[in-house]
Amino acid sequence: MTQPKTTLPNARTTPRFAGLCTFGRYPRLEDVIPEHRPVDWAIVGSVYDCGVTYRPGTRFGARAIRDESQYLKPYHIEHDLMLTEVFSLADAGDAPLDLFNAENNAKVLAEHLASVADPQSKVMMLGGDHSNTLGALRAAHERAGKPSGGLAMIHFDSHVDTVDITMGEKYSHASPFIRAVEEGVLDPKRMLSVGVKGPLNTRDDLNYAKDHGVELVTYENWRREGTKRIDAFLNRLGDDPCYFTFDIDCVDPVFAPGTGTPSVGGFTSAEALELVRHIARAHPAGGPNLVGADVVEVLPDRDVAGNTALLAAHVAFEILCLSALAQRG
Amino acid sequence: MTQPKTTLPNARTTPRFAGLCTFGRYPRLEDVIPEHRPVDWAIVGSVYDCGVTYRPGTRFGARAIRDESQYLKPYHIEHDLMLTEVFSLADAGDAPLDLFNAENNAKVLAEHLASVADPQSKVMMLGGDHSNTLGALRAAHERAGKPSGGLAMIHFDSHVDTVDITMGEKYSHASPFIRAVEEGVLDPKRMLSVGVKGPLNTRDDLNYAKDHGVELVTYENWRREGTKRIDAFLNRLGDDPCYFTFDIDCVDPVFAPGTGTPSVGGFTSAEALELVRHIARAHPAGGPNLVGADVVEVLPDRDVAGNTALLAAHVAFEILCLSALAQRG
Amino acid sequence: MTQPKTTLPNARTTPRFAGLCTFGRYPRLEDVIPEHRPVDWAIVGSVYDCGVTYRPGTRFGARAIRDESQYLKPYHIEHDLMLTEVFSLADAGDAPLDLFNAENNAKVLAEHLASVADPQSKVMMLGGDHSNTLGALRAAHERAGKPSGGLAMIHFDSHVDTVDITMGEKYSHASPFIRAVEEGVLDPKRMLSVGVKGPLNTRDDLNYAKDHGVELVTYENWRREGTKRIDAFLNRLGDDPCYFTFDIDCVDPVFAPGTGTPSVGGFTSAEALELVRHIARAHPAGGPNLVGADVVEVLPDRDVAGNTALLAAHVAFEILCLSALAQRG
Amino acid sequence: MTQPKTTLPNARTTPRFAGLCTFGRYPRLEDVIPEHRPVDWAIVGSVYDCGVTYRPGTRFGARAIRDESQYLKPYHIEHDLMLTEVFSLADAGDAPLDLFNAENNAKVLAEHLASVADPQSKVMMLGGDHSNTLGALRAAHERAGKPSGGLAMIHFDSHVDTVDITMGEKYSHASPFIRAVEEGVLDPKRMLSVGVKGPLNTRDDLNYAKDHGVELVTYENWRREGTKRIDAFLNRLGDDPCYFTFDIDCVDPVFAPGTGTPSVGGFTSAEALELVRHIARAHPAGGPNLVGADVVEVLPDRDVAGNTALLAAHVAFEILCLSALAQRG
Amino acid sequence: MTQPKTTLPNARTTPRFAGLCTFGRYPRLEDVIPEHRPVDWAIVGSVYDCGVTYRPGTRFGARAIRDESQYLKPYHIEHDLMLTEVFSLADAGDAPLDLFNAENNAKVLAEHLASVADPQSKVMMLGGDHSNTLGALRAAHERAGKPSGGLAMIHFDSHVDTVDITMGEKYSHASPFIRAVEEGVLDPKRMLSVGVKGPLNTRDDLNYAKDHGVELVTYENWRREGTKRIDAFLNRLGDDPCYFTFDIDCVDPVFAPGTGTPSVGGFTSAEALELVRHIARAHPAGGPNLVGADVVEVLPDRDVAGNTALLAAHVAFEILCLSALAQRG
Amino acid sequence: MTQPKTTLPNARTTPRFAGLCTFGRYPRLEDVIPEHRPVDWAIVGSVYDCGVTYRPGTRFGARAIRDESQYLKPYHIEHDLMLTEVFSLADAGDAPLDLFNAENNAKVLAEHLASVADPQSKVMMLGGDHSNTLGALRAAHERAGKPSGGLAMIHFDSHVDTVDITMGEKYSHASPFIRAVEEGVLDPKRMLSVGVKGPLNTRDDLNYAKDHGVELVTYENWRREGTKRIDAFLNRLGDDPCYFTFDIDCVDPVFAPGTGTPSVGGFTSAEALELVRHIARAHPAGGPNLVGADVVEVLPDRDVAGNTALLAAHVAFEILCLSALAQRG
Repeated sequence: MTQPKTTLPNARTTPRFAGLCTFGRYPRLEDVIPEHRPVDWAIVGSVYDCGVTYRPGTRFGARAIRDESQYLKPYHIEHDLMLTEVFSLADAGDAPLDLFNAENNAKVLAEHLASVADPQSKVMMLGGDHSNTLGALRAAHERAGKPSGGLAMIHFDSHVDTVDITMGEKYSHASPFIRAVEEGVLDPKRMLSVGVKGPLNTRDDLNYAKDHGVELVTYENWRREGTKRIDAFLNRLGDDPCYFTFDIDCVDPVFAPGTGTPSVGGFTSAEALELVRHIARAHPAGGPNLVGADVVEVLPDRDVAGNTALLAAHVAFEILCLSALAQRG
Repeated sequence: MTQPKTTLPNARTTPRFAGLCTFGRYPRLEDVIPEHRPVDWAIVGSVYDCGVTYRPGTRFGARAIRDESQYLKPYHIEHDLMLTEVFSLADAGDAPLDLFNAENNAKVLAEHLASVADPQSKVMMLGGDHSNTLGALRAAHERAGKPSGGLAMIHFDSHVDTVDITMGEKYSHASPFIRAVEEGVLDPKRMLSVGVKGPLNTRDDLNYAKDHGVELVTYENWRREGTKRIDAFLNRLGDDPCYFTFDIDCVDPVFAPGTGTPSVGGFTSAEALELVRHIARAHPAGGPNLVGADVVEVLPDRDVAGNTALLAAHVAFEILCLSALAQRG
Repeated sequence: MTQPKTTLPNARTTPRFAGLCTFGRYPRLEDVIPEHRPVDWAIVGSVYDCGVTYRPGTRFGARAIRDESQYLKPYHIEHDLMLTEVFSLADAGDAPLDLFNAENNAKVLAEHLASVADPQSKVMMLGGDHSNTLGALRAAHERAGKPSGGLAMIHFDSHVDTVDITMGEKYSHASPFIRAVEEGVLDPKRMLSVGVKGPLNTRDDLNYAKDHGVELVTYENWRREGTKRIDAFLNRLGDDPCYFTFDIDCVDPVFAPGTGTPSVGGFTSAEALELVRHIARAHPAGGPNLVGADVVEVLPDRDVAGNTALLAAHVAFEILCLSALAQRG
Repeated sequence: MTQPKTTLPNARTTPRFAGLCTFGRYPRLEDVIPEHRPVDWAIVGSVYDCGVTYRPGTRFGARAIRDESQYLKPYHIEHDLMLTEVFSLADAGDAPLDLFNAENNAKVLAEHLASVADPQSKVMMLGGDHSNTLGALRAAHERAGKPSGGLAMIHFDSHVDTVDITMGEKYSHASPFIRAVEEGVLDPKRMLSVGVKGPLNTRDDLNYAKDHGVELVTYENWRREGTKRIDAFLNRLGDDPCYFTFDIDCVDPVFAPGTGTPSVGGFTSAEALELVRHIARAHPAGGPNLVGADVVEVLPDRDVAGNTALLAAHVAFEILCLSALAQRG
Repeated sequence: MTQPKTTLPNARTTPRFAGLCTFGRYPRLEDVIPEHRPVDWAIVGSVYDCGVTYRPGTRFGARAIRDESQYLKPYHIEHDLMLTEVFSLADAGDAPLDLFNAENNAKVLAEHLASVADPQSKVMMLGGDHSNTLGALRAAHERAGKPSGGLAMIHFDSHVDTVDITMGEKYSHASPFIRAVEEGVLDPKRMLSVGVKGPLNTRDDLNYAKDHGVELVTYENWRREGTKRIDAFLNRLGDDPCYFTFDIDCVDPVFAPGTGTPSVGGFTSAEALELVRHIARAHPAGGPNLVGADVVEVLPDRDVAGNTALLAAHVAFEILCLSALAQRG
Repeated sequence: MTQPKTTLPNARTTPRFAGLCTFGRYPRLEDVIPEHRPVDWAIVGSVYDCGVTYRPGTRFGARAIRDESQYLKPYHIEHDLMLTEVFSLADAGDAPLDLFNAENNAKVLAEHLASVADPQSKVMMLGGDHSNTLGALRAAHERAGKPSGGLAMIHFDSHVDTVDITMGEKYSHASPFIRAVEEGVLDPKRMLSVGVKGPLNTRDDLNYAKDHGVELVTYENWRREGTKRIDAFLNRLGDDPCYFTFDIDCVDPVFAPGTGTPSVGGFTSAEALELVRHIARAHPAGGPNLVGADVVEVLPDRDVAGNTALLAAHVAFEILCLSALAQRG
């Protein structure tokens, strides 16, 4: 039997309602035993939420995801994958922030995420609003050796998040990707956006993405054509270093009521999970070469019965599994 | 670029959480500028809810829909339609009512809806319970020039609402269509009911509809056959003046918990929205000739996280888009 | 017109919000008129919930199901079946329990369920946690004349519930079926488990079921292959005496938030109901030979808007309809 | 040891979460053993709620009170009174109603309440909105032998409920006492209203009560003077046949969120219970001569955590204790 | 009979659940008839909430207060005051804001509040977080003719809000009064803070207030001494132009769950309302000379059953009554 | 300035919504720096909740208290006490348990609590149901050197918890103190029970306490006489080693909705906190000699807006302050 690389409490003897809440009951980063160092992925909460334009409150998102993740289990039945046998995983706590300055917050966050844990570790960020992803992309780009042209990205979202300026501000949750492209850390031509849908404010809201070569698989496109475009993108993507960002609002607000900009008529939880799993099946190498990832926009005060946070925990798990599958080959 | 016919606040500078809540942030009827008069559609709340036989409370439905509609956007991505460029839209407030007399309430409501705004304006009613639709049908029939034989109707609902008498009363939310047929404002042979499902009180509950030629597309029929019968109905319908009534309980109660007579096992939000959109694609003229419409049975005190009201706002938007598409041709 | 075998209040004159809450407004067992005796099915609540390993609270499940079942109607539209014409039905109240001893509780429950109502009556148990099913299986086995080899079983669940020992205990909600097999009341080779899914604690969690011949139709298998294996099982099953257990957590936690061990990414309500109905269509005799049944794991304190209990009431109705269809042939 | 007159399940062996929910776990009227007949008080639900002018939903009030009353215990610690030793108590289910005609509903209700159980039994009505009290007063007046001049009344409420016409209707929850006075079943000069408070619609809203001699102890008066006026009233009252009506909205909406016309700044639960208990201490005969009573305006869909219904159950218990104390002398 | 100065819908014929939600059903500022101009008080929402350090979400506070204020009535029973006969009142909508710059937001807000409605009108601001009060104080100071030494202030709050810098920011909800004193718009020696309580972060948290002469009436002081210090302050205050700010968190979080920095163990609603009313009784001129006011920190997503917003509406009404009483003399 | 003995994050720079949730943001026991060892008090969660007879779910209580305790501050304004300057405090995580055997669970818990942290440390237990207090009393008794006659105890509760057997079980949440007295770890003659109230199951429910010399200060006694008996008890108590147990249900269920056996009409939060503070003022040595303490019966699934857990965190803080005051003298 394979040795585990992450030590979990035994769920058959230590109940899931006991103990301090680290993500997935993984050890805190400072408690990881030497044999399990360096960790493969460090889980980091990002609690900034002043980048939003409608409902605020995702600053409590990371905490809620950790609470619900106590019920997360490590064996993936479909992939036949025991995640904790492939990866050393740890919870590295929450990143510092600048609550009152959006631009500086991205900087503070990027510095923390680039330096947390070991240089070869990767970071799974739990949000927080989507503006945090700009900092996370900068850090992942740096950890990946600053590949010229920037990172590729798989992006699940109801919104394309490429608005230039909102309420007078360039660094909001509507703008992370236009900024990331300008800075060279994200390559729009290797960016896939899945689940975008309307209605929109204007007929021009998708122009930036279309003009810059983003592969847009709208919700409607997926209903009509299935994963055709996704499959083609994954083939093009190959082993390029890739970031994965999952905005929970790509899921229908009935499945993810705990979010700030709900978009009616989206994926069910089952459909979203299936799409993430499909990435492994459709990718030529069994999974993309992930160099960083996040699950964002979880807003607990709107989260009925904890379903949004519970789903977010499972999405993070599924993304980690993609990375493990790529490593397993 | 086309001139807008409805003036909306700029969502990139005026936040959606500010200001008095008109539907979709449309102007109040009295504030519509002369160039935008007469309005094409006036939005009117109907707050009567004493016609119900199980859970009451839809009197707060119109208010809740307006609150959630602050997040409604005007551009329809699939239809490539900027609704506010096609239509002048306004919120005309709420209709008067007779809380204590069901029969008289229908009369009071019909008079108001027939005279609100300009004669050539149409009315989108936000409910309120389904008994209000009798008044709305009378008014729409009058506005349409009282076509003999009555109006055609597209009807989304879990229930067929053709019970003769309930709890001793002829004017309840179980009876609007039997009354409307009797009065000649509704033609059952050009009536399409989508989403009806069981269980039922008796095996005879659908007899009236079947006997009078209503096209019944039960939920189960749709699962088995898809839109086949709907498509045929739309071809028969052509340009006949048609009313559109959408009872939110046609959607599964998990998607619309805020309603009074929940029917387990119905449409998801995405399926319901897709069906409404499909009407444009399947109709020979690009959309039916709507002369009035409503979205009813929204009950905020049961509405978890506001999802029912948010969905209702989007359904109203989708119906207005059908009308705009028909006009665009 | 067929005479009813169960007397219900007239829903058109006696409102559903009035009166004491028996299941489905069926008469209490002691009030059943002589012409309707013996009852075909007695509904019994089982309120033990100390067998759980995560969230407790299903002791209030039976009460909640009864409350929501006031809106249950007797005519099944798809099966064209008036349930109350086929069966005499009654609510027999709640079973006694031993709150503080899991093993003894199963004994106390089994004795009650074996003796309640008439010997030829069958029992539909409303849970309570899944550990109660061990007692119910024993009672059903006894009522069925103790067929050697044990009962066949149709089992809807996210979990396979064949853990040997949990938290040091052999009689928990994780273990009913391993115990029932050991005792000879359940035949694993004629057991069908539908809806099982991951993630799991270990890669070995399904071994017991696989090794003992349980027909496992995981959620994913159903997505890929549909009902193929279910259909084959039903053909094999034939008229063997069969128990039906439905753990509400087989449904996605958004549809059944009121449960204690939520498993993300499962059936919608519509899909689950369709699967139960399908059993009648796929079974060679029009329905399995049910000798007992339950719906368990309903936890009202987590049940947003009552949807879980409302669904549970309808699932119980659907299962009773399966039995009626088998009898109708 | 005194023999009980009401048989309750033993709470130390039969858990409170099991069994059908009768009020206080009292027997159903039809199950009362001969030795306990006739019952002293019959508990009857009144589920009409169409008499309201703001939030509806009290039709589910009686059911909610019964659910929460499972935790009601029979021994009153302060009065040193075992209620079930003094009284035979039973739950007589819910009264019939006319949902669509306020005036007729009062008639239907009065007839039922006058004839339910034995002639010498009294009725404790669980509401329902306050319009039901008109029917209950008529019935209590009749049961009391139609004393000329009408009944005396103790009335806890934030509102004085003597509006002549509301929304065109004479029989609403704003008007029961003006109607009862007109009909001669209520004597305003022997009516005590406790807890009335503002703000009011007009400066004349209390004129009817003042002009007709009602003893008004506003909330503010109680804060300033305590029970001075209440004590004087009780001395005047003596043994006159008296009705007791308790509108749950006399309690602050934080203590009774489940109600339809919340009035900010009222009694705490403890203060309200203390006031009811005080009536026994201040009354010359140890308690008023109650001939009927009710607790009304409980609206479960707004009832956070069930506190309103739980309080209502305890208020009903306290009123029954007043009656028992008067009998004990 | 006195003529009203504010036209309200007749609550006996137009139900409170109908119509667009202006505060207290007052007319919109643009709809005020000429005879009622200029308005005495304009109600303005302030929806900025990025100044908070714990739970965000008060941006929806003004909307929630307006919704719940539909049940507000104009006659004050204790003061024997018909507010709408003394004052012309109007709802002037919401102020503009700068969501992303705390310092600039105070400027934008101050400019709007200084210029809205007529110069002689006063502004009642509905929050939004307490940082908005800095802008409101500047505007009130300007409207009052910029009295040297700044304005006096009555301040209800659990916190003294005189922190210099929080999370690196000078313009947060922890700092409005230190800034206002620095700017000369607020005179700390004529500032009364009622309801402050612990625990605190450090033993020095109250030093600024104590050192600058603020009259601190902590919650505990009030429990021990009652209104002694408040009465003395009001006597000192006399007719000095005075601002009134009410942070809803001075009330216990059970009475005001909808707020962001809950402080356990505070006033009940009744106690808080009584304290505001007491100001009229204790003031030598029958009420302070208010030149501006606000009710802030209402956070609807945490507001159970709407009680916080309902209380806030009534507090605003009570403050307006104080102003009316001072004018009445 | 005094050196802190407990290191807290700076709340002015590290926001309270960031980081893993230890109680009060105290360090984990394993992270306490050498200079702060041994800790004075270790906070330990006890998550067993199968000892309840009505609503279960307190197994999540310790987690909820920790979550809400993020907003706990260290300086006590009334006592002028900076708790973290007097005590070294740490969070020691949760105790192990035996979910399926009540008697053994008490043993497992007692062993853990007796050995956790250093021998001279004391334990503040966060519950969990009240049956856990038996284990905690044993451990405190052992840590205190097993004083003959057992420990004194201050007990806040609505129930006296001295039932011999419930549902056949001797080790439930109704029985901890009868067991503790039998075992000699608790001295009933030096036990003070505050807040007990009715109604009760029988007139004999308080006999055990009365017969064994427990000082019973019922809620009603406190309303009539204030703290007279409490003061006398504290004088008698002197420096005897004393345990402090606080059952959150002594507070009115509106203030503590998150609990399993709600008792209507109890203390407000402010009253309960004031009573705990009063113990310091009334005790001859400035505070009792506490050797252990707990706050129990917090049930998050019923906890509206988190108020129960927030209150529980503050009660634990107040009890720790009592201990610090006694040490300060």
